[in-house]
Amino acid sequence: MLIRVLGSAAGGGFPQWNCGCPNCRGVRGGSIRASARTQECVAVSADGESAWVLLNCSPEIRSQIESFPPLHPRGPRDSPIAAIVLTNGDLDHCLGLLSLRESHRLTVYATDAVQRGFTRGNVLYRTLERFPGQVTWRLMKIGCAEAIVDADGRPTGLTAEAIVTPGKPPVHLEEQKSPEPEDSVGVCVREVRTGRVLAYLSGVASITDDVRRALTGADAVFFDGTFWSSDELPAQGLGSKRAEQMAHLPVAGPNGSLAQLAGVRAGRRIYIHVNNTNPMLREDSSERAAVTAAGWDVAWDGMEVRL
Amino acid sequence: MLIRVLGSAAGGGFPQWNCGCPNCRGVRGGSIRASARTQECVAVSADGESAWVLLNCSPEIRSQIESFPPLHPRGPRDSPIAAIVLTNGDLDHCLGLLSLRESHRLTVYATDAVQRGFTRGNVLYRTLERFPGQVTWRLMKIGCAEAIVDADGRPTGLTAEAIVTPGKPPVHLEEQKSPEPEDSVGVCVREVRTGRVLAYLSGVASITDDVRRALTGADAVFFDGTFWSSDELPAQGLGSKRAEQMAHLPVAGPNGSLAQLAGVRAGRRIYIHVNNTNPMLREDSSERAAVTAAGWDVAWDGMEVRL
Repeated sequence: MLIRVLGSAAGGGFPQWNCGCPNCRGVRGGSIRASARTQECVAVSADGESAWVLLNCSPEIRSQIESFPPLHPRGPRDSPIAAIVLTNGDLDHCLGLLSLRESHRLTVYATDAVQRGFTRGNVLYRTLERFPGQVTWRLMKIGCAEAIVDADGRPTGLTAEAIVTPGKPPVHLEEQKSPEPEDSVGVCVREVRTGRVLAYLSGVASITDDVRRALTGADAVFFDGTFWSSDELPAQGLGSKRAEQMAHLPVAGPNGSLAQLAGVRAGRRIYIHVNNTNPMLREDSSERAAVTAAGWDVAWDGMEVRL
Repeated sequence: MLIRVLGSAAGGGFPQWNCGCPNCRGVRGGSIRASARTQECVAVSADGESAWVLLNCSPEIRSQIESFPPLHPRGPRDSPIAAIVLTNGDLDHCLGLLSLRESHRLTVYATDAVQRGFTRGNVLYRTLERFPGQVTWRLMKIGCAEAIVDADGRPTGLTAEAIVTPGKPPVHLEEQKSPEPEDSVGVCVREVRTGRVLAYLSGVASITDDVRRALTGADAVFFDGTFWSSDELPAQGLGSKRAEQMAHLPVAGPNGSLAQLAGVRAGRRIYIHVNNTNPMLREDSSERAAVTAAGWDVAWDGMEVRL
């Protein structure tokens, strides 16, 4: 299984269009050791060549596809993208679907809650209903591993299992619907041939037994690295909400993911969905050193992991 | 007035994610003389430094803003983008609004039809309704020049006047609403101090007296360069619709824009919103030579015009 990170930043990307925090200013001016990142999206393929599965579909999907030649078409109208898995309804995870509207058949895996949230009351979605079968939704049920297939039902050699991760509905639906466990999930992607497992949990508000179980024994873990600390935004004067109010467990602190996951047995450990304000984006920061010392990587655009 | 082209391609960009036509294949492989282009979006400023006005807001707005330092923030939460003008409701012109959702006040100029089309029945739009006054819509009326101001009412030194251009509703609304003249407009941007005029008509199905009047005497014209010929897509096996069915007058042919606009007196003439299949994208093509010989340019990402 080949995992290619197309985008590793949280919503807004790094730098963020209207942000002049030290990180954003620094990466624009080249005065800090950090690289720019587009919004979270990861491509996975069993054989590393064909039948790619996207985990989430960021608003920047067009440039992300162009950044990685194995995702380029091989015919006049073609795409090696076999399927797309959505982990929740946040716009930084879903909006890119509307950029894949050039009369191409798509297969999208999501929970019922995420599918409803994106397709109902969304007149823009009609751009993906231009012909029958333009989008095939395949509903993921918690705890059921199922084969990932393309629009013609051809297997990709991968299965996906949705994991309940504490989360919340996307901001634009917060007052529209009651929260459901399926609003936000992690996904365990397994290669059928080798049994290797990628545990992909890019949005996690707290670590439950389900979360711990999904990570244990995985060959690679991608985990929510949005914020370093709970008060990251308020402390920089950039917002009033604490990390937990946005359904993101911070990396640091006695209850942070770094401490809580220290004892979990897993292969590669990688933080993803990193917010532009997070100090661990700076390669020479003490925060990055602490993450590295604990055996974690911080994902970057273009990173590849082969399992 | 400084005009900076942030994106010059039609919907889908160049290359387009699922397209393997000779142009897209060639630009990916570097085997043709053509440069990649993001989707149409242009920035205009009276003094060339501050108070930028975006004409349309493409899905690629994040990377487009980053591509041009004068659009970068000058404070912790800031943007030199004073206002956004939408010429129609096509997703390649509007979707980027949803990427500017980081609690920033936006001012958007559009006709009533375009505003309704984007905000009604669109649950995603709630992401821009997170606090009162997040978006100020300023409705453009056909033929009325009005001052472009920012969210605090401060003038940009520019006025905008909507011009009726034959067009159609966006694809996703085609069966939802009756066509209206205001579904698609051109816009004349005038610098108050100098009186210089940019006529921006990136979607034109046919040349009417109104269109001709808007172009005549303008210091710069940006015009619909989507297709070279009527049968461009069917001839390449890439679609069934002719250019006119998609509300785009082709460039070539006895009734094309090049012939019809030959006698119009205007300053700089520039084709924009160029589809990936258009042969004039190739800098060494006979089509490009014909355009150049007639006094036209083909816009590229990063092009600047100073009036």
